[in-house]
Amino acid sequence: MRPITLRLEALTAAVFAPFGDVIEASDSAQRLPVNQGYAERYHDLATVDLAGSEGKVLISIFRSQPRQFPLCLNLLERHPLSSQAFMPLAPLPYLVVVAPGDDEPKLQALRCFVAAPGQGVNYARGIWHHPLLSLQQISDFLCIDRGGPGMNLQEYSLPPLQVWVPNPN
Amino acid sequence: MRPITLRLEALTAAVFAPFGDVIEASDSAQRLPVNQGYAERYHDLATVDLAGSEGKVLISIFRSQPRQFPLCLNLLERHPLSSQAFMPLAPLPYLVVVAPGDDEPKLQALRCFVAAPGQGVNYARGIWHHPLLSLQQISDFLCIDRGGPGMNLQEYSLPPLQVWVPNPN
Repeated sequence: MRPITLRLEALTAAVFAPFGDVIEASDSAQRLPVNQGYAERYHDLATVDLAGSEGKVLISIFRSQPRQFPLCLNLLERHPLSSQAFMPLAPLPYLVVVAPGDDEPKLQALRCFVAAPGQGVNYARGIWHHPLLSLQQISDFLCIDRGGPGMNLQEYSLPPLQVWVPNPN
Repeated sequence: MRPITLRLEALTAAVFAPFGDVIEASDSAQRLPVNQGYAERYHDLATVDLAGSEGKVLISIFRSQPRQFPLCLNLLERHPLSSQAFMPLAPLPYLVVVAPGDDEPKLQALRCFVAAPGQGVNYARGIWHHPLLSLQQISDFLCIDRGGPGMNLQEYSLPPLQVWVPNPN
């Protein structure tokens, strides 16, 4: 495999659809008035999928360190038993790297999206993705995924010095 | 009932325990290193409770309007079939009003907590609470609750001009 430098793409619900959901207060969401008119509910923005397994939904916080760019990627992961959602707890951009593929990710089809402030992602069950990629500062994310019996983590080591992410700043 | 003005209390996991969970990256949480050391997972911070019902977990965004203070409260609500979590998507304070009680809230035992930036709450199933109370600006919250068959909302009208929240600003 020859070294590749990923192209940075804007994150939209349409381009991300093969990989999961974009969690955002968008005009295309179902909007419900609630709280006596004091709030609007952007309803049901992500599919929480436990694969019918015995597990339970977990709510956790990830505190993520910023990365240095250009960045060489060395690992992808996926969760065969559940979706996994990340919602940033401050309006900061970050990167989202995903790949199609089943037993192995298709590296020539890796995608790198720039999540805008206010955008979260929900990786669909079994989708290969890179761990969190924060940009300029320590960033907290709310995570909604799964706990319970069964192995819910698969990892894939990328070939060394082959997949690069350019500086998005 | 004589008019009461709620006392503003700091939100902590200990004082909120009878009503649910405080969702925060606290030192007392179980902390797991993840993402090859680039992130720390504050693990399993809230109990998502669907009451064994047929429903599914929903992820939504609430866009909440700020309130004017002093504020007269006129409504409490609760969800008999599920917990309901709210996590602010920007580091802003807000207010959390809850009451003990089963068929009716015990109004003399109403509590009003000031959530600090970075604190979310998860109302336990069946806990009486006031809708979102944002302070100085329009505020987005991630909400994790339930969709599905069955009536999951009960409302209780407060007596007029009886329950007041002082200005927290």
